[in-house]
Amino acid sequence: MQDQILNHFIRTHKETEARCKELEIEDYSVQPIIDVSPPKWHLAHSTWFFEQFVLVPTLPNYEVYDPNFAYLFNSYYNSVGERVLRPDRGLMTRPTVKEVYNYRRHVTDAMIAFLKEKRMQDILDVVVLGINHEEQHQELLIYDIKYILGHQPFFPKYETNILFKTQKAPSKFITIKEGVYEIGHMKDGFSFDNELSPHKVYLNEYSIATEVVTNQEFIAFIESGGYANFALWHADGWDFINKNSIQAPLYWHKVNNEWHTYHFDGLKKVSLQDPVTHISYYEAYAFANWKKMRLPTEFEWEIASNQLNWGAVWEWTGSAYLPYPGFATAEGAIGEYNGKFMVNQHVLRGASIATAKNHSRNTYRNFFNPNLRWLFAGIRLAK
Amino acid sequence: MQDQILNHFIRTHKETEARCKELEIEDYSVQPIIDVSPPKWHLAHSTWFFEQFVLVPTLPNYEVYDPNFAYLFNSYYNSVGERVLRPDRGLMTRPTVKEVYNYRRHVTDAMIAFLKEKRMQDILDVVVLGINHEEQHQELLIYDIKYILGHQPFFPKYETNILFKTQKAPSKFITIKEGVYEIGHMKDGFSFDNELSPHKVYLNEYSIATEVVTNQEFIAFIESGGYANFALWHADGWDFINKNSIQAPLYWHKVNNEWHTYHFDGLKKVSLQDPVTHISYYEAYAFANWKKMRLPTEFEWEIASNQLNWGAVWEWTGSAYLPYPGFATAEGAIGEYNGKFMVNQHVLRGASIATAKNHSRNTYRNFFNPNLRWLFAGIRLAK
Amino acid sequence: MQDQILNHFIRTHKETEARCKELEIEDYSVQPIIDVSPPKWHLAHSTWFFEQFVLVPTLPNYEVYDPNFAYLFNSYYNSVGERVLRPDRGLMTRPTVKEVYNYRRHVTDAMIAFLKEKRMQDILDVVVLGINHEEQHQELLIYDIKYILGHQPFFPKYETNILFKTQKAPSKFITIKEGVYEIGHMKDGFSFDNELSPHKVYLNEYSIATEVVTNQEFIAFIESGGYANFALWHADGWDFINKNSIQAPLYWHKVNNEWHTYHFDGLKKVSLQDPVTHISYYEAYAFANWKKMRLPTEFEWEIASNQLNWGAVWEWTGSAYLPYPGFATAEGAIGEYNGKFMVNQHVLRGASIATAKNHSRNTYRNFFNPNLRWLFAGIRLAK
Amino acid sequence: MQDQILNHFIRTHKETEARCKELEIEDYSVQPIIDVSPPKWHLAHSTWFFEQFVLVPTLPNYEVYDPNFAYLFNSYYNSVGERVLRPDRGLMTRPTVKEVYNYRRHVTDAMIAFLKEKRMQDILDVVVLGINHEEQHQELLIYDIKYILGHQPFFPKYETNILFKTQKAPSKFITIKEGVYEIGHMKDGFSFDNELSPHKVYLNEYSIATEVVTNQEFIAFIESGGYANFALWHADGWDFINKNSIQAPLYWHKVNNEWHTYHFDGLKKVSLQDPVTHISYYEAYAFANWKKMRLPTEFEWEIASNQLNWGAVWEWTGSAYLPYPGFATAEGAIGEYNGKFMVNQHVLRGASIATAKNHSRNTYRNFFNPNLRWLFAGIRLAK
Repeated sequence: MQDQILNHFIRTHKETEARCKELEIEDYSVQPIIDVSPPKWHLAHSTWFFEQFVLVPTLPNYEVYDPNFAYLFNSYYNSVGERVLRPDRGLMTRPTVKEVYNYRRHVTDAMIAFLKEKRMQDILDVVVLGINHEEQHQELLIYDIKYILGHQPFFPKYETNILFKTQKAPSKFITIKEGVYEIGHMKDGFSFDNELSPHKVYLNEYSIATEVVTNQEFIAFIESGGYANFALWHADGWDFINKNSIQAPLYWHKVNNEWHTYHFDGLKKVSLQDPVTHISYYEAYAFANWKKMRLPTEFEWEIASNQLNWGAVWEWTGSAYLPYPGFATAEGAIGEYNGKFMVNQHVLRGASIATAKNHSRNTYRNFFNPNLRWLFAGIRLAK
Repeated sequence: MQDQILNHFIRTHKETEARCKELEIEDYSVQPIIDVSPPKWHLAHSTWFFEQFVLVPTLPNYEVYDPNFAYLFNSYYNSVGERVLRPDRGLMTRPTVKEVYNYRRHVTDAMIAFLKEKRMQDILDVVVLGINHEEQHQELLIYDIKYILGHQPFFPKYETNILFKTQKAPSKFITIKEGVYEIGHMKDGFSFDNELSPHKVYLNEYSIATEVVTNQEFIAFIESGGYANFALWHADGWDFINKNSIQAPLYWHKVNNEWHTYHFDGLKKVSLQDPVTHISYYEAYAFANWKKMRLPTEFEWEIASNQLNWGAVWEWTGSAYLPYPGFATAEGAIGEYNGKFMVNQHVLRGASIATAKNHSRNTYRNFFNPNLRWLFAGIRLAK
Repeated sequence: MQDQILNHFIRTHKETEARCKELEIEDYSVQPIIDVSPPKWHLAHSTWFFEQFVLVPTLPNYEVYDPNFAYLFNSYYNSVGERVLRPDRGLMTRPTVKEVYNYRRHVTDAMIAFLKEKRMQDILDVVVLGINHEEQHQELLIYDIKYILGHQPFFPKYETNILFKTQKAPSKFITIKEGVYEIGHMKDGFSFDNELSPHKVYLNEYSIATEVVTNQEFIAFIESGGYANFALWHADGWDFINKNSIQAPLYWHKVNNEWHTYHFDGLKKVSLQDPVTHISYYEAYAFANWKKMRLPTEFEWEIASNQLNWGAVWEWTGSAYLPYPGFATAEGAIGEYNGKFMVNQHVLRGASIATAKNHSRNTYRNFFNPNLRWLFAGIRLAK
Repeated sequence: MQDQILNHFIRTHKETEARCKELEIEDYSVQPIIDVSPPKWHLAHSTWFFEQFVLVPTLPNYEVYDPNFAYLFNSYYNSVGERVLRPDRGLMTRPTVKEVYNYRRHVTDAMIAFLKEKRMQDILDVVVLGINHEEQHQELLIYDIKYILGHQPFFPKYETNILFKTQKAPSKFITIKEGVYEIGHMKDGFSFDNELSPHKVYLNEYSIATEVVTNQEFIAFIESGGYANFALWHADGWDFINKNSIQAPLYWHKVNNEWHTYHFDGLKKVSLQDPVTHISYYEAYAFANWKKMRLPTEFEWEIASNQLNWGAVWEWTGSAYLPYPGFATAEGAIGEYNGKFMVNQHVLRGASIATAKNHSRNTYRNFFNPNLRWLFAGIRLAK
């Protein structure tokens, strides 16, 4: 068991760095908008988590790499003290990328040694949380690298196998019967606290599409004037698209009257059978309205999930991000992980092509503010 | 039946004006913050609703009072055309208060004549909606008048019987069994579309307080450092109170080291047994956290409501404002009434001392953004 | 002499109120933008000046009308203590208009009695400053009333004789010889401290137009694409017009493809031979550039002034507002009158149709930020 | 003569790169505030100037390094077409630093070849302007590098000989007689257009300090409460320091109750006899007010300059940045160099330790907005 954790730890460490392999030094430090953190910061922060919550409290003789890093690479843990404010992450040109990699090596070596000794379950739980935390940052790294490169005036390519695939099967609707269902993480293995505790919900009969919406369908929405018809939108959504002059998904550009989009393989014509992505919750909702359907709730999604084709893009659900009955936060800094974000956000279910494999489970509750578009999020219809 | 509607219409018209009776002309036009509309605007807008949605479409010979008023007093109905933008309501010094009262008289006379003739149910439904709409603005009028006067440097009094009452009974917890329950408006009589359609929910066993939280209890929260302890707050709530330097409910001032609050009877010492009010959802949530409890969901509230003492203040629930299963918006402008607000808001249940009597029903779903404090909202605990 | 001051005081008091005579109560309290103060505020503030700087310090038995008014109606005198912040002037619905007129009567009666007794020159100097101060506010009152009414959606008329007159004489250029000239207020009679002390300047030979620029000339500038040609503008001016989508003077509207403008006599076709006005310094500068000329300096203006036709609109000069050699501020609150504004502003010379008669002198230094347009300012060319 | 230009060109090219020699790759791309450009941008932009204004228009066969760079590295020349907006300079992680150095080499090689052929005076004038332009960016480079490093949480050192020197001579006042003086660049050799054309001014008698103000004197101002006494400040300055919580020069930090400041040699105790620097015009003005003196005008400075000790810090003068009589802008893009900034700025005279040697002339007119503090600017007193 502890062996498995050690292997998982090492695998995760390598995968994180692999995702950055093709970056230029210059790409590591920039924060073009507040939501996009510098890649360097992700590298350091996911390492900081292990130093701060595993090594320092457990090993009296552990030598911290640099006492200042606790200040530099804390994200939002108030319990752990002062920190560089989020909008200022892009100002830190020091420590350099090279030094951050040294920091990672220092902590990783110490972690490997740590995990080779026999450890109490309590601290192993924190290690597992740290690994899952780093895997979450792996996905954010991909979002952020794409944002940084996709906003260079001349669209550089980036070597990676994280590419969208054409959707082959036609979508159809399956129907689920009315009744009481059991929701939440009930299996063995890791889950985040927000997937617990399992509980019953009552669902009315509903139908749900087996496939997510494609670019072709979304272009039909655009061409029918969807972005100009207020009747399809939330009031907040209507304000949002007008204030920001939004007329298409993020990264879409009209070149010679054809829609193009930027992905790691460069600026290319929109591939019609790929899932639509880089849309906000507001756009997902308006699209569903236009289809005279709706988005599924997160519970409808979870119950139907085994019969659905999912995993290319996260899927906006109609559910606000709220605690499950009986949800309780842990004591101390770890308790800041999930609960304090349970307001003003919407739940996404599924997984994306950038998601770490073991995060692909049907109880996983991802969540973002309804206006965010840089994540890999798409649409599934229900009625 | 149509007689009842006529009487209700007249009664509502009078009550709206009664609530403004003691205003100075100067008080009618000001918009101190974007959420607070000028009283003059409420008077004109609730009348505009009848002219726009009843008289104009039904009576070919109806003479509109002033064709410009359609532009001036539309609130948010995009279907009805251009309008004065919300932040600019306070700039309209013209038409004068006197002219707005003339406008009301003109429309009201026409409405009374209209209702004395026999009418189709369809248009009577719109009339009833218009009456309920005006009643909602009656409550907003009270919030806005209080805000306007409560932000004058020297706290003028205002003659009204809308005063808080001391809470006499001690609060205790009642327990509701786990199971499937029926939610939503099922009785005869008017309801808003967001209370329909009735449906089943599954509730875990829970306990809920019979009384809302008092000022005394909230002062204990303040004095224990509740506003300074980030662990009690949502991340967004913590940002909100810090950015706005919030340390107490709205209208509270410390005078000679004692908490005072402004209400229509002037700036007075906080009455300890009154329900706490003028707090945001964030503060309600933090208070419940501090008590190691939580806010009830709107479903828990509705099922327990007959056993609770409610009606002094609206009560923030833990539920985001989302559509009920099967919710459908009406066609046309009336369809903009509720659905387009179903994001980024929290549900409040109950009623307040400023609520029109017939709005006090246990299926009523009030909703506001989680940061708003000028409404009469308070806290009920659950666990 | 003291008699003259008394008469001047009474005349000024009456003129101020005459300018407000046709206002509705609602018009008195509104502050549509930060630069525009509510007319009620001007009425109270100019009276407050006499109470604060004349009556209170001189008469031990003087009873202040209301001690709170010192807080409410202070403009920017830090020496005098706390005050309502400028952006909040429009929130004060109380005291009412009626009470402000009572306040004016109370102070004015006391001032008249005061001036009927023999007084020391020192305090008479303050009285004269107070009268000139009120006259300055008379002009601001006109600007602010026009702004308030001109931003009502339906352009109400306002009874006044402050109207622009057609310019009859054709403009020609007169030439002034190179040499040393004497600048500044050297005559008897009142002047502001910023017009003192007289001093020499060296001027190169220059030519200056006898008339200000007309609407017809400015329309030619617009139609030639002046607002779209960056080469004519300051970098700050170019940003300013683009950020604010400025394409014509303030109050100009294109109706049926013809330029109309709002003045107190309503929205009318632009009168071609009237002086152009409601333009910023940036627009004056760009216009002169387009003509391949420039604006005169304030010194060039002053030396040539006797040969010029001026008095319809203030004239933007090319001079920044800076202290004259030897300028010294008075001790105490009165010292805050002028000096502390001597940065980031441009000097205007001349007078406008809204200026009090005795302010029309060729040494008067008016000043405003270069982006302001609601004043009555126009353009004179030099080369 | 052309040889001299070639040598000057090469020397300047090297000096620019020498100033960046110790930067880490990460330091080159960041733009912490809008006023601070990434060092990489300065390197590319000063090279772009030669490519754009010399090579492209003159050499038909010149091959541009990359046609996109014209868009990326234009600063503010509207005549030259679209450009990356100033606030977005820090987002460009590509081209990389390495590629920018290649770009410089490409253009520099072409320029050297160009200057080895015989050329017309016209284009040589542009070359000389380009060299002076690059020298101006050398100084900005130092300001920006200091800002970037000085805002790293842990104050890295930077190898350079650009260090402040202790002021040894005590300051005394010299007096200049009243009269007509000649101002402006009259010698042979390069000057910017804003120093031309020479003209007469009339000066009253004045006294001016031989030395600039020291840190010791400025600490006395701070300790006497200078930052808390509104009577010393412009209204705009008072707003500025309060809105930004300014209590000391930029880069000053109180450590263990002693003032420290960051310079390239690290965070150290403030050296009392060094000239005070990193203050805004507002602070210079307030300091002079506190001394019951004033800042000299730029004309007073120029006339007295031969008798003054200057060159360590630029000196804020009391003069707004305005055109000299007869000032004319060149046609085309070069005409955008100076004239369009002649509003809202104050003139600084002298030179700083970061100024290119041949920019140290007593007619040089430097200019900045009055709130800027990251330049090396100090104070000289006059009376």
